Amino acid sequence: MNINIIGRGNVASQFVKEFNKIPKLKILHWYSRSFKKTLDNNGIERTNNLKELKAADINFLMVSDDVIKKISKKIINKTFTVHSSGIHNLEELNNKGGKGVFYPIQTFSKVKDVEFKNLPICIESDNKDDYLKLKNLIKLLGSKPVLMNSNKRKHLHLSATIVNNFTNHLYANAKDICTENKIPFVFLKNLINETTSKAISFSPKKNQTGPAKRNDIDTINKHLELLENKPFKKVYKTLSESIIKYYEN
Amino acid sequence: MNINIIGRGNVASQFVKEFNKIPKLKILHWYSRSFKKTLDNNGIERTNNLKELKAADINFLMVSDDVIKKISKKIINKTFTVHSSGIHNLEELNNKGGKGVFYPIQTFSKVKDVEFKNLPICIESDNKDDYLKLKNLIKLLGSKPVLMNSNKRKHLHLSATIVNNFTNHLYANAKDICTENKIPFVFLKNLINETTSKAISFSPKKNQTGPAKRNDIDTINKHLELLENKPFKKVYKTLSESIIKYYEN
Repeated sequence: MNINIIGRGNVASQFVKEFNKIPKLKILHWYSRSFKKTLDNNGIERTNNLKELKAADINFLMVSDDVIKKISKKIINKTFTVHSSGIHNLEELNNKGGKGVFYPIQTFSKVKDVEFKNLPICIESDNKDDYLKLKNLIKLLGSKPVLMNSNKRKHLHLSATIVNNFTNHLYANAKDICTENKIPFVFLKNLINETTSKAISFSPKKNQTGPAKRNDIDTINKHLELLENKPFKKVYKTLSESIIKYYEN
Repeated sequence: MNINIIGRGNVASQFVKEFNKIPKLKILHWYSRSFKKTLDNNGIERTNNLKELKAADINFLMVSDDVIKKISKKIINKTFTVHSSGIHNLEELNNKGGKGVFYPIQTFSKVKDVEFKNLPICIESDNKDDYLKLKNLIKLLGSKPVLMNSNKRKHLHLSATIVNNFTNHLYANAKDICTENKIPFVFLKNLINETTSKAISFSPKKNQTGPAKRNDIDTINKHLELLENKPFKKVYKTLSESIIKYYEN
């Protein structure tokens, strides 16, 4: 199977690395506006000209959500093209050939390689043949293809934002509090792991504990005092109020 | 070493279970107001009368934060007594004998047994001898004793509330969204595990991704539309604004 990759962010870079390990897959071209034209160490032809992309089985458009429309318009090969956004419809694509979606439910970064085995990847396509292509490719990765329409995928993307972006922001603030008070953040490791493991295996709704759940205003006020004039105080209040309301009825 | 346990909530129950496995430890009495006087299956004497508690090396007062003061007043043996609260000073105790704190940084529930190996337990005591008793007992559990004063422990408790109670509430809401849209919550498992593993091993501050971090108002508005008139909309807004502000400078 021949593929092209468009984009050089965290998602594109990790997939290029992983695709490269699969003998049955060949990356014909890897495009980024900022690339120099060259054959890289892995034998992949890098290009900065979208018009050069050879015809392939799939173009992977792995770019920021806000440039999918613009960049897809410039793809002139008639290859089936997928974007990797959780929030955008299939119709966001403006390429000439078939259109599809390839949304891995994961967070990608420079600091850590992702495990692709059993990773659910949501796929969608405007025709059956291209859907099967995607499905086969995902099996080559050892990942888990999940057929999902754009509307359902949007809700999944919202949920992913909540469990990744928002929890991470909470971790960042908790770590700040620890650091200011010379407490090693790693003391919270067992607690964090227990919390997530229980959230996945049991009902987070039923697992809820803590001062807000108990409506323990005394402890909440003690915490608010510790937060003094910090901007995080508003987050603390909003989340505590939300927990209290959630269990009101 | 002889000990008494006061309380029958999740913390007390899990510790009784664990203490019971250690041959060098003997639970003399287990108190709860709601117990019937009996010798239970593990040979522990249950009682509903605090005045009956025999003298021991340590009384473990594992009750809700708001009744520590009241119940500790009724302890008439002169045994060193510890509470297990993260937020209360050592002085919250009103017992006759020595006073201390034994705060495990963990969440305890009925649905799942906790791993005690390497679990950090914060301890504090008003005298050296009792401190050493606590330290030795924690080593018998395979847990990790951490000497920490009440002020520092309060900040740790605040951080624990953030990484446990608040993230769990986010999981509950994300799961609700998934359930309403017939999406298996388990699709988010890899993402949740990657998020926490990265938060612990790297800097959550630097790990932050997502629409709020990118100031991607278009995606944020799409998410807010999906949340329609849900109460969680306020949490989404507050957290997104907090992320935007956090990275402003």
